Amino acid sequence: MDTLHRLIQALRYLPGLGPKSAERMAYQLLRHPKQRQRGLHLAQVLRDAMENIRHCARCNHYTEKTYCALCDNTQRDRHLLCIVETPADVHALEQSQTYHGLYYILMGHLSPLDNIGPNDIALEGLYQLVRQEPIKEIILALSPSLEGRTTALFIRQQLQTYPLTFSQLAQGIPSSGALEFLDAETIRHAFHYRHTV
Amino acid sequence: MDTLHRLIQALRYLPGLGPKSAERMAYQLLRHPKQRQRGLHLAQVLRDAMENIRHCARCNHYTEKTYCALCDNTQRDRHLLCIVETPADVHALEQSQTYHGLYYILMGHLSPLDNIGPNDIALEGLYQLVRQEPIKEIILALSPSLEGRTTALFIRQQLQTYPLTFSQLAQGIPSSGALEFLDAETIRHAFHYRHTV
Repeated sequence: MDTLHRLIQALRYLPGLGPKSAERMAYQLLRHPKQRQRGLHLAQVLRDAMENIRHCARCNHYTEKTYCALCDNTQRDRHLLCIVETPADVHALEQSQTYHGLYYILMGHLSPLDNIGPNDIALEGLYQLVRQEPIKEIILALSPSLEGRTTALFIRQQLQTYPLTFSQLAQGIPSSGALEFLDAETIRHAFHYRHTV
Repeated sequence: MDTLHRLIQALRYLPGLGPKSAERMAYQLLRHPKQRQRGLHLAQVLRDAMENIRHCARCNHYTEKTYCALCDNTQRDRHLLCIVETPADVHALEQSQTYHGLYYILMGHLSPLDNIGPNDIALEGLYQLVRQEPIKEIILALSPSLEGRTTALFIRQQLQTYPLTFSQLAQGIPSSGALEFLDAETIRHAFHYRHTV
């Protein structure tokens, strides 16, 4: 197979990219010298990332050092710990520029149906943090699915002997959400937690 | 900027990829060792492609050798020359497995409004082929746009002294085309070229 077809093939394995998009992408990358420079740059960064990014020794976030930039930041409030399922969740929460505490990433959630039990996600590291750090409040920012709720409940039970406050993110209408596209449960929550204005 | 954000940034410059898709892609590439292997493979192929792919010395197609695999293939009919605008067009036509002649890629089309004249596309190489090769028929497979038609007309005029047959691809209803989604001109052509069955 020639290099062009190997490129199309390799692009097809990018998560979320269909065969037609991979083709178009390959041809466009080759077309202009400027695009080729970008392609070369991507090749270099991709290789760096695949080889050097590992998990933060404290919170499991992606980093190329021992600790991630968030854990290393002494300005963050160490009394608050926000528990999420994936590194992408941290990214989304950070973009809101609202939360200034620390994170802990479980790298998944409990899912008895898929045989994912307490030993299959990163719970031990969480227990260790709770023992060692001056945490006062734990914000359970897990997904609102059955698995997320099960995981949140399990964590509360495991940590019930510690003097911690537990909270979870408010549920309701997203600010971009046209009502007609929202699911029934979101609307149910929004009615339940409504407040006078 | 850390490696993760450099990766998201570099993925954003892939043609046709939005910022949200680039983020999702980066996180998914990092998640599993299998995905990381694919990421490393892509980095390698991408670099190879950007550095080594150039234009075929005969037809302008992408290749890492002097001549592309199509021009090198002695089984192809050298009496037929199909003229297209881009390498991606060759790819599309080859997938139909219908045509067994050779190609010539103009790398663009004439466009007086954008200041793209006869010296800005690869016409010289075409004239050379016509002088040197045993071509009997030229199939003008240019886009049905005004620019494509202008380019086709110009080529016919330039080559009118040679004993060549000119043809163009049939226009009509595409086999996947629900009538309601087709433009008026396609339907007009389909009526005009209709045949008894």
